Amino acid sequence: MDYSLLWLDWKHREGLPPYTETLCGEVKTGEGKTALRELTAGLQAMRGRASALGSQKERPCLRLEELEADGEGFSLSREGEGMCLRGGGKGLLYGAFYLLRRLALGEDFPEKTSSPAWPIRMLDHWDNADGSIERGYSGRSFFFREGEPVCTARTRDYARLLASCGLNGSCINNVNVKGNALHLLSGRYNRELREIAACLGEYGVALWLSVSFSAPMELGGLPTADPLDERVRTWWRDTCASLFAAIPDLAGFLVKADSEGRPGPHTYGRSHAQGANMLAEAVEPHGGKILWRCFVYNCTQDWRDTKTDRARAQCDTFAPLDGQFRDNVYLQAKNGPVDFQIREPVSPLLGRLPHTNSLLEFQLAQEYTGQQRHVCYLPTMFREVLDLRLRHREERDTVAESIRAVAAVSNTGDDYNWTGHDLAAANLFGFGLLSWDPQADPAEIAREWSVLTFGDDPSVTEAVCSILLGSRETYEKYTVPLGIGWMCVPGVHYGPCPEGYEYDRWGTYHRATCRAIGVERGPEGTGYTEQYAPALAELYRDVETCPEELLLFFHRVPYSHRMKDGRTLLQRIYDDHFEGYEEAEGMARAWDALEGRVPEEVFRRVRERFREQLRSAKEWRDVINSWFYRLTEIPDEKGRTLYL
Amino acid sequence: MDYSLLWLDWKHREGLPPYTETLCGEVKTGEGKTALRELTAGLQAMRGRASALGSQKERPCLRLEELEADGEGFSLSREGEGMCLRGGGKGLLYGAFYLLRRLALGEDFPEKTSSPAWPIRMLDHWDNADGSIERGYSGRSFFFREGEPVCTARTRDYARLLASCGLNGSCINNVNVKGNALHLLSGRYNRELREIAACLGEYGVALWLSVSFSAPMELGGLPTADPLDERVRTWWRDTCASLFAAIPDLAGFLVKADSEGRPGPHTYGRSHAQGANMLAEAVEPHGGKILWRCFVYNCTQDWRDTKTDRARAQCDTFAPLDGQFRDNVYLQAKNGPVDFQIREPVSPLLGRLPHTNSLLEFQLAQEYTGQQRHVCYLPTMFREVLDLRLRHREERDTVAESIRAVAAVSNTGDDYNWTGHDLAAANLFGFGLLSWDPQADPAEIAREWSVLTFGDDPSVTEAVCSILLGSRETYEKYTVPLGIGWMCVPGVHYGPCPEGYEYDRWGTYHRATCRAIGVERGPEGTGYTEQYAPALAELYRDVETCPEELLLFFHRVPYSHRMKDGRTLLQRIYDDHFEGYEEAEGMARAWDALEGRVPEEVFRRVRERFREQLRSAKEWRDVINSWFYRLTEIPDEKGRTLYL
Repeated sequence: MDYSLLWLDWKHREGLPPYTETLCGEVKTGEGKTALRELTAGLQAMRGRASALGSQKERPCLRLEELEADGEGFSLSREGEGMCLRGGGKGLLYGAFYLLRRLALGEDFPEKTSSPAWPIRMLDHWDNADGSIERGYSGRSFFFREGEPVCTARTRDYARLLASCGLNGSCINNVNVKGNALHLLSGRYNRELREIAACLGEYGVALWLSVSFSAPMELGGLPTADPLDERVRTWWRDTCASLFAAIPDLAGFLVKADSEGRPGPHTYGRSHAQGANMLAEAVEPHGGKILWRCFVYNCTQDWRDTKTDRARAQCDTFAPLDGQFRDNVYLQAKNGPVDFQIREPVSPLLGRLPHTNSLLEFQLAQEYTGQQRHVCYLPTMFREVLDLRLRHREERDTVAESIRAVAAVSNTGDDYNWTGHDLAAANLFGFGLLSWDPQADPAEIAREWSVLTFGDDPSVTEAVCSILLGSRETYEKYTVPLGIGWMCVPGVHYGPCPEGYEYDRWGTYHRATCRAIGVERGPEGTGYTEQYAPALAELYRDVETCPEELLLFFHRVPYSHRMKDGRTLLQRIYDDHFEGYEEAEGMARAWDALEGRVPEEVFRRVRERFREQLRSAKEWRDVINSWFYRLTEIPDEKGRTLYL
Repeated sequence: MDYSLLWLDWKHREGLPPYTETLCGEVKTGEGKTALRELTAGLQAMRGRASALGSQKERPCLRLEELEADGEGFSLSREGEGMCLRGGGKGLLYGAFYLLRRLALGEDFPEKTSSPAWPIRMLDHWDNADGSIERGYSGRSFFFREGEPVCTARTRDYARLLASCGLNGSCINNVNVKGNALHLLSGRYNRELREIAACLGEYGVALWLSVSFSAPMELGGLPTADPLDERVRTWWRDTCASLFAAIPDLAGFLVKADSEGRPGPHTYGRSHAQGANMLAEAVEPHGGKILWRCFVYNCTQDWRDTKTDRARAQCDTFAPLDGQFRDNVYLQAKNGPVDFQIREPVSPLLGRLPHTNSLLEFQLAQEYTGQQRHVCYLPTMFREVLDLRLRHREERDTVAESIRAVAAVSNTGDDYNWTGHDLAAANLFGFGLLSWDPQADPAEIAREWSVLTFGDDPSVTEAVCSILLGSRETYEKYTVPLGIGWMCVPGVHYGPCPEGYEYDRWGTYHRATCRAIGVERGPEGTGYTEQYAPALAELYRDVETCPEELLLFFHRVPYSHRMKDGRTLLQRIYDDHFEGYEEAEGMARAWDALEGRVPEEVFRRVRERFREQLRSAKEWRDVINSWFYRLTEIPDEKGRTLYL
């Protein structure tokens, strides 16, 4: 195989509990059979020899009990010296991987009753038909080659990876649908798609497709894509009928409409609800769902205009539509109001759709967070987002409790190690575990991932965990701390460019002067804070109560502003950058110490990445600090070098 | 024909002097015959009927007298009511066009004795073999199509245009030699090149080729391109022998070596002299010449390094080599020390090569000066450069007197009007006239071009001249006045980006802070001023004597600095931008008033360009002014709008 198995490369272990020697019970469904197969193979790999199959009197066994239930939950319970795994077919599958992971971690009797937090837990791939990946940092697509979808051995192992951490969906093509990807809808690739769907389905992973809102024109030859036009509605109904007949496992469509130049209902004076509902009606007879992206904002903004605020756009557009969407529509909102920055407040839209299915979207592809060349462990960020109380109700209403589905832009490609940076696989694994259980502990996830990936050498686990767990804050420090965001090179989004998004049509300006920086988003400013529930709005509105890590997202603040610890804002910015770079050096040193303790090839690959991370971190530190120094001519209090 | 004849579209005129009715005299050479043909055709167009050929007693005639002389000079003298044009074949050609132009301008007896200032007066085309043009703003190449050189009717009309304004050379391919262009040297395109050379030669225009210094490796399969390696020398000798045998009219090679990533002698620890001389020896037996570019600087500079100064690089590299180059080598230096900005001091290298042939290079392609979407009449700039006294000697030593050749990066492409912007053709025409006579008056050139192009409607001439003559200062005002330079979008070099070349590997930083801006290039700074002769160094060194339009090129200056008229530097920057935009509006209005007075199609094309110029000028004005306002928080004294 020309790729790694990541955390599923089960390592040999001594002293597994005796019940692992015998597998018994009967399975009927496809997923149940997959579960049994995975247990058989996994235990064989760990034990070094095959387990016996079928019940053996007087010997403890691992018993599978397949229930009629259609759900995804499972239970693992001790039966004397044996264990019993119960669940529907899908439940057995998730339970099997759970058990294998716990055994690999050294637990003998991992009793557990578990079911996932949400029914939709998926990856969004921004793979283009030509095999390129938009914002892809780990090679080319393994779903598309030379314009056509392909199903390979890698497709199956990809499905295994997803199932093993709890994920159950995959949208395989870019939301910016172009080129041959249009024809995923036309029937041209039904055979290939059916094959992919079956391969994913074996592991309980549903196939989703991104579609173009103007497909009736692009494919159907109609003069319009108006969602209220009867020809358009008929075209979608007919197209869906053929497509779902050919690919019964198809779950539905993901749509980017009226966003960054994509076509959408606004072109015809229709609302997003009218657009999404039209599609929802077309897929409804086939049990299909529509995932409708909320990433809608004015991307031809005049920088002179200080009233328009990109952060407000999604709530302004979608909150008034709450309740107008059909039951099989999910509104997909990014975790922050802008675009996958290293630190953003939680999107207020997530609390403003009580009568609509909402889907929270994260990004594993580290577009703005180091592009899989910098280590940036994201489960800590994901957990923060999921835990936030939206405060629209008296009772608990965390983000996790308010959403109905979760997705993440994938960080995978055809690189040997799937994710470019070997350590970036921890993000994929962690997203999966959190999608199943939003209460999962990011530190525990890191430990689990490290042991599964590198084995249980404690010095490796400790070093890897220490690298991962500090990495997001480190990245934030040497790049854009305190919620500044966006000081990256436009277009590529890698490397520093302090004014890259000033004077630009994409919005999100910091408008820094020699005295102050930031967009005032309180009621005296753009009013963005008022999109939150009163309790949160109150918190964010006031510079004194606003969480410091988000200070410059919410407020325009003078450099002389005193932070809670007494430092000036400017000195805090300087300090963060110097500290961040030092921390990055520490991470690289921690990795260097693992030479000989992790596979040589992995060691070298990661060391190379750290070299680039340090080069880039130094550039960030020096450019950002020097830029503030030039703006203010106020030197660093500790006399460290700034460049005029 | 699918292109315009530009200034050679002779208009009908009443009342031409009687001698134009009869052409007499004999011509022998190819160029002489071309001269006769052009006179015949030109007079027929102007008169509306053919002139008689051969001497007719008692009627005044235009008599051609072809001398044996090989030079390019000509004389036009009155003979009673007739005129006599005397010269070698080439002289007749230039004289014929001169006479036609003067007749078109209404002069009856334009007596003149004239010869060109320099023997090499050429255009450099940055045309790639694939038909694209680097920094081309007027369509695709007409020298290359789909990877191959082509000779078409346009080639001939191009040669006519050149000869008609005094130019005698053309290097048809990009100095960044790549793709199929490598094979211009290999013999693959000898037939096409011979055809082009013959077509150009008919009009006295010599063919030049850009070559890659590492051609012995790329084409010859050698393991090195070391100029002292005998295999390399032999390869070049043999290659040149075949090439010049196949294309006898070939003039020589243009070489970009050790520049912006191009290969060169430095790779092998050899000097530019060793590199250039090796090539010079190879072409010498065939009468060939080597044009060696001096555009050599560190393009991987660390922005933290304040010692390295891109402006110094060419003099530092080439001045010490003066006298080491063979007689058939010409060192080609851009007019400024950096790169074709709207205002730069004259390159000090031009005064530092007393024992070397030097070639001054201008740029007609308006890479940094509006890209043929903004009007920017350049002959005024060219004349300033040519007139500058370099002050290395007591006697007059202007740039014009110090150089031996002149070239300009062409602004032509396959657009209908050749130069994208119809008014940009005036730059091509003006460069030609100045290359013949560096004392030519840019205002007179503009008038001549306007009359030849649009006819003699005085309101048109007046409007066109007023637009052209103010256009460079206007562009300078609304973009980067006072020698700031480089505040353009990196890469594309169009539109404002105040920090686009800060923190970058290309050098030329302004390092602006909240108090001051500019690189100090005096003796306390990078020492660049000391590359000039003492009298000039003294002038530039001192902020008080430094020409104001170059203030920020030479010096780091606080915004509070008082300009000669009492305004602060900052207020001058604000004022320039507001005034520049208003002037651009005035230019657009002046053009609008010409509706119905110039051909409808031209009127519309130019009006479209003005629309873009105004849009862009407004963006420049607002971005640059707002950027300075943010840096300083000092408002405009006149209360005009700046944007926070």
